[in-house]
Amino acid sequence: MDFIREASPLIAGRKIAGTAVYDAGGDEIGVIYDVVIDKRTGKLIYAVVSLGGFLGIGKRLYPLPWSALTYGSALGGYEVHLSKAELEEAPGFAPEQLPDFPDSDEEAKLHRYYHVEPYWTH
Amino acid sequence: MDFIREASPLIAGRKIAGTAVYDAGGDEIGVIYDVVIDKRTGKLIYAVVSLGGFLGIGKRLYPLPWSALTYGSALGGYEVHLSKAELEEAPGFAPEQLPDFPDSDEEAKLHRYYHVEPYWTH
Repeated sequence: MDFIREASPLIAGRKIAGTAVYDAGGDEIGVIYDVVIDKRTGKLIYAVVSLGGFLGIGKRLYPLPWSALTYGSALGGYEVHLSKAELEEAPGFAPEQLPDFPDSDEEAKLHRYYHVEPYWTH
Repeated sequence: MDFIREASPLIAGRKIAGTAVYDAGGDEIGVIYDVVIDKRTGKLIYAVVSLGGFLGIGKRLYPLPWSALTYGSALGGYEVHLSKAELEEAPGFAPEQLPDFPDSDEEAKLHRYYHVEPYWTH
């Protein structure tokens, strides 16, 4: 179902996986594997990013607070203001070991790592 | 990948399809077929709802402005303050004929139908 134009600012939920993620230097460092949505507010709160490897099969996954991402229309993907090395040091998980969200300790740690305000404070 | 507890206010993007939608009378009238996300703001702006029939194969689809939905934790799904009859009168489309979003005329019509403020005004 391709009801949304490629260059549109809108995207179907089932199409967001695979969107490219770029580091501060403009290099593609990975892709969105999935997103985490707050059902009550309808806001995306995490992008679960796979660093390398389409759809991240067998790879480590990095939950990034949504506010750590900026959409670049020219790039057609998201920018994160960290280097790939900094991202590799970030909290990453095997797919079957992702935090059992919500997990307040783990989530507080994630937001501190990316220097962004926790979504539950605003 | 079941990294989010069932009763959580959070949900993985790939799991949102199939979430139940209830009418004003509390009857289940359909399920979310997909969502439409604003890539820039990370907000859900439409729920594409299938009235009857899991995942809406061969059915008509109804794009509802996200603000017309309220999440009911007790229900485990979304409430729309319209009757099933009113929803059936709503703008609905065959899956291959959904508006080519963004489409300002069609979107303005959708927001008027559900009596909600267009997402582009706030």
